[in-house]
Amino acid sequence: MDATDPRMIKAAIQAQRDAMQALFDQLRQDGLDEPGVSRDPYGAGEQRAHATLTKAAEALALEIGHDDAANLYMTLPGRDRTAPVLVIGSHLDSVPHGGNFDGAAGVLAGLATVTAFRAMGVTPDCDITVMGIRAEESVWFQVSYIGSRGSLGTLPDGALDVRRVDTGRTLVDHIAACGGNPDALHARIRHFDPSRIRAYLELHIEQAPSLVEARRSVAICTGIPGNFRYPEAWIEGSHDHVGLPRRFRHDAAMAGAEFAMALDALWADYDERGIAMACTFGRFHTDQAAHGLTIVPGAFHFSLDVRAYDEAVLAELEDKVGRIIDGIEQRRAVRFHLGPKARAAVGVVDPTIKAGLEAAAHDQGIPVLHIGSPASHDAAAFAAAGVPVGMVFVRNENGSHNPNEAMTIDDFLDGTAVLVEWIARTSIHNPQ
Amino acid sequence: MDATDPRMIKAAIQAQRDAMQALFDQLRQDGLDEPGVSRDPYGAGEQRAHATLTKAAEALALEIGHDDAANLYMTLPGRDRTAPVLVIGSHLDSVPHGGNFDGAAGVLAGLATVTAFRAMGVTPDCDITVMGIRAEESVWFQVSYIGSRGSLGTLPDGALDVRRVDTGRTLVDHIAACGGNPDALHARIRHFDPSRIRAYLELHIEQAPSLVEARRSVAICTGIPGNFRYPEAWIEGSHDHVGLPRRFRHDAAMAGAEFAMALDALWADYDERGIAMACTFGRFHTDQAAHGLTIVPGAFHFSLDVRAYDEAVLAELEDKVGRIIDGIEQRRAVRFHLGPKARAAVGVVDPTIKAGLEAAAHDQGIPVLHIGSPASHDAAAFAAAGVPVGMVFVRNENGSHNPNEAMTIDDFLDGTAVLVEWIARTSIHNPQ
Repeated sequence: MDATDPRMIKAAIQAQRDAMQALFDQLRQDGLDEPGVSRDPYGAGEQRAHATLTKAAEALALEIGHDDAANLYMTLPGRDRTAPVLVIGSHLDSVPHGGNFDGAAGVLAGLATVTAFRAMGVTPDCDITVMGIRAEESVWFQVSYIGSRGSLGTLPDGALDVRRVDTGRTLVDHIAACGGNPDALHARIRHFDPSRIRAYLELHIEQAPSLVEARRSVAICTGIPGNFRYPEAWIEGSHDHVGLPRRFRHDAAMAGAEFAMALDALWADYDERGIAMACTFGRFHTDQAAHGLTIVPGAFHFSLDVRAYDEAVLAELEDKVGRIIDGIEQRRAVRFHLGPKARAAVGVVDPTIKAGLEAAAHDQGIPVLHIGSPASHDAAAFAAAGVPVGMVFVRNENGSHNPNEAMTIDDFLDGTAVLVEWIARTSIHNPQ
Repeated sequence: MDATDPRMIKAAIQAQRDAMQALFDQLRQDGLDEPGVSRDPYGAGEQRAHATLTKAAEALALEIGHDDAANLYMTLPGRDRTAPVLVIGSHLDSVPHGGNFDGAAGVLAGLATVTAFRAMGVTPDCDITVMGIRAEESVWFQVSYIGSRGSLGTLPDGALDVRRVDTGRTLVDHIAACGGNPDALHARIRHFDPSRIRAYLELHIEQAPSLVEARRSVAICTGIPGNFRYPEAWIEGSHDHVGLPRRFRHDAAMAGAEFAMALDALWADYDERGIAMACTFGRFHTDQAAHGLTIVPGAFHFSLDVRAYDEAVLAELEDKVGRIIDGIEQRRAVRFHLGPKARAAVGVVDPTIKAGLEAAAHDQGIPVLHIGSPASHDAAAFAAAGVPVGMVFVRNENGSHNPNEAMTIDDFLDGTAVLVEWIARTSIHNPQ
């Protein structure tokens, strides 16, 4: 069998349709938390997903391992076990009441990839490690990329001491309860030396409907946004009576509304100029213990995420946000307390891998779109550590982080075929 | 003693300084709920205030009575017990963690008034009834003027079935537990025939710092605002991923921010044109169960109170609010669900009483300001029932509905002196 023949690869991928569908169904069952699925990181939901993937990997006789952050490694041994490894991964956690595909699709694509090589009877030049990554979603711990940065020894200071917003338990406790080793993470002992990773590949559902709009199944990623975030900001005003004239008010909610509208206008302007960015006030709320129909809000809480594909654009946006706040503080006699700031660097996609994925898609007869990732991904943590990364997006009609994520198995197999074709072109030099 | 001599009246009022201060202190102690006081309506806080007032009225040998809404009546008998009565009242409940003076000051002013006549040894022409009114603050039951409208038989349909937002118990239950008779209220059996009330007078702390700004102790009210309210409105959008491009979003929080800014701009415009109004989003919040740092808000909740002093202005504002919503729904692809609408009619102050209070203040040597009430008051319920009403505001630096309400006993005695002087001028025709 010629593992570089695109038709063989296509057949090896298509043969897995039913098995993959069954695995997705099992994962949905594992995480069911109506509406949608909840795979809470370092918690029961994520644990069940890890158990299901481990069982699938055992059935494929892959080598199974873990690191100090309790990430899951499922390895197909290569011809040269000392050569830098190819990692195909994504995360197995989800947001609360999210969909079944955000994250998990990338891990299953990795399994389908190694299964295809097994089925074709070829051994790649190097190990291919499928990585089931922990705790990517920042909604739980207000910190992103916990698993991937844990494996790379790049977790930021203090990250291990944060508490999960629902349980109130620290990340240290959660990691230890799942068999990890927080002391080693604290000492920044890394599982992966970045120079030992040839490439990190990630397949992910698209989190916007650009592919639906363009009627394509697959997109090649051109870049991953960096961001700055204020997870716990609030505005201090003055609680007053509903009848207070406008000139006397220090209305914290109105100040929040003005801030949001100013950033929305900024975004609309960048959009018009073709500079990609996004800003999101995920939490945006008066104080539940104090608000009421007849009380002018004296406190207003928000989280803010601002993202862009260029560090210079991010710096410019940070500066503008600061100036907008100054103006509102003066006009409305309120005070912004931004609290801790988090940052994620822009994730640069490796141009050689990007070109290779395009060529692979072409050979598979799959017309692709080129898009900047709307979202952050573990790939950005690998890119920040110096690993060459590439990403493939799969069409998904209804966005992600909600129960209505809609990826078809056909589109998933298209995306996986691109990965396998790329590996076949770059990592099979001595077919058996 | 000549009860129409302003100096005698002033002396009779000043003599009560210590007793009134002690009564305010006792009320604060009764309602203490740091920070501030909580006199929860038809609950323990309000009950303690009623007990304290009842004790004070017993010490003055006033006639004590109650009605089906469990309002408290403390009556100084007049010479003609069949003549229409003068009511001096305000409410004894407070917002949660509010101040000590909003409401209670008006009841104590009534007690100080009848005490002054007792001290001067004069019997007024008609009964003077001091009324301790129940449940004026709408933050608890989302319905305003419950006590005063209960006494007048004008409670709106369904009001008795609402639930207190903290206890979840119905108003019917709460009223019954405090010795009221909900069945009679349901049948709209009124305690007061409006034609049997000569006038309703209310003293209240100012809820804005206009008097502080003008360096006056007392203001005569020129009108009480009517309002329309949406206590439980929300905006339906779509929960999406933080990276979703702007053109694909249905961000409910951004829609809420745009709505608030549009109403704020409308208000600024009315202010410039000298048309008094106010609008307040007391609750303004994403969904606590679903919001998060990386989720575009798919639902946004708010309460809205819009008030003005002219029914035509209110109607115009309602129309404009509707058109603003239409525009936002189209631009942002969201849907507004306004829920139940509540209304309160504009409260017209009786011009003869207003002129009489001005003359009384002049005779007492107290320079006054003339202001529209920023807030709604029980007086509006009496005005709506056809009773001639008048109101006096007392200087208060820090607004109301907060623990920092600041009324001095000097200013309180000034306001009370205006009431006594007015009664002496209009209701003492046959001094004993």
